[in-house]
Amino acid sequence: MTTNKREIKRYKKSFEYSYSYGVYPTLDLILNRPDLLEVVIVSPFGNKNQGLEKILHLCEQKNIPVITSQKLILKLSKKENTYAVAKFHKFKSVLDKNSPHILLDKPSDLGNLGTIIRTMVGIGYNNLGIIKPAVDIFDPRVIRSTMGALFQIQFEYFESVEEYAEKYRAHHLYAFMLDRSEDFDRVSIENLHTLVFGNEGQGLDKKYLEIAKPVKIRQNTEIDSFNLAISAAIGMYIASNNS
Amino acid sequence: MTTNKREIKRYKKSFEYSYSYGVYPTLDLILNRPDLLEVVIVSPFGNKNQGLEKILHLCEQKNIPVITSQKLILKLSKKENTYAVAKFHKFKSVLDKNSPHILLDKPSDLGNLGTIIRTMVGIGYNNLGIIKPAVDIFDPRVIRSTMGALFQIQFEYFESVEEYAEKYRAHHLYAFMLDRSEDFDRVSIENLHTLVFGNEGQGLDKKYLEIAKPVKIRQNTEIDSFNLAISAAIGMYIASNNS
Repeated sequence: MTTNKREIKRYKKSFEYSYSYGVYPTLDLILNRPDLLEVVIVSPFGNKNQGLEKILHLCEQKNIPVITSQKLILKLSKKENTYAVAKFHKFKSVLDKNSPHILLDKPSDLGNLGTIIRTMVGIGYNNLGIIKPAVDIFDPRVIRSTMGALFQIQFEYFESVEEYAEKYRAHHLYAFMLDRSEDFDRVSIENLHTLVFGNEGQGLDKKYLEIAKPVKIRQNTEIDSFNLAISAAIGMYIASNNS
Repeated sequence: MTTNKREIKRYKKSFEYSYSYGVYPTLDLILNRPDLLEVVIVSPFGNKNQGLEKILHLCEQKNIPVITSQKLILKLSKKENTYAVAKFHKFKSVLDKNSPHILLDKPSDLGNLGTIIRTMVGIGYNNLGIIKPAVDIFDPRVIRSTMGALFQIQFEYFESVEEYAEKYRAHHLYAFMLDRSEDFDRVSIENLHTLVFGNEGQGLDKKYLEIAKPVKIRQNTEIDSFNLAISAAIGMYIASNNS
């Protein structure tokens, strides 16, 4: 595989590759999915950074090409304090039929998607379904907010919740909805579960009442709702303790 | 109180006033703190928006001046889909000595601060201490991400944790730190507690080991740490159920 600098362009959704920005996401990529890597670009100004030293060492060990160029880094990330960027091939995966899942219905916020993935891995969820239309999971801003956790999960896109439910029939769906729902921490939660969260603007459609158990996180009525990433975190925390 | 359009300038930290952007934060401000309001600016294009109708009705009822101007809104918020902005006077408050507190040590991320405030109100915390240096709580981007919850809490700034601890001596401090700490959900939590969270980059200083009980949220080692707003949410959730 050869790479020249002209092949390194600012990210667009249509590309077949993307970039991890920053030392920690890049390290996670090298450690978890070296097969995806095309090239690592490093800053000449990061020579006191321990993570960067580890990256250079691993690249040598694994025969991954390295380009040293501050100009290229700035072109890609526009942040002065980025010491490493990796160019990698996008990947597809399918979900594990025997593990619990998180399912996001039409997520529309890049930061929330990244934060949810980071939280998933922290709590112990490694399978994410996404119902389209949705933000681009490979957008470098998503990858940045996952802090590298993207390379530790399986994810799969679906056209509809029906398509998901048909494929993963054994999973018990719990849909987080505000109206008429039971408090999630009082519900008995099946081991093989799927926690479903709606998007930032609209929440979940009423059709979920037919295919999922509607649940909610207890909250004061002084706020309209929790932020999506917060709801997902508390929901995962409860399920990981009660299932 | 008179207001003319020339007195409405894009926000700077040094101002004695700030702005709430958007219909819901503005509604929360009118409902909770009408005493702070100077003027409400509305878009002429929001006439199908129910929240905006409620704002106009309340302003008439409470004698709050209203300016209709899309140009002013764009000047302030730079977002086309903002239908209402309120100009209000900044306020100070002190914490309630008899309620549990959240204490943030040098928070540096605007979005996280706003999300934490929104989560506080949702879970039932209404008192926030902030140790300086810190992001500006009145930055309109913070207010936007609180979704109006800023107007439902007391908050107070401190030069150091020692100053805080001296003033609120009866509170039991629980400091969220990663090393050598007990899992927070196995700790017995005092009713009159303070949950302390460090900032996004550095976490909490070792001096907290002397003045607080160090605790942590159980997590997989595959991630470095949870996002700050996520840690705070899970911490508050645990304490609100176990104290």
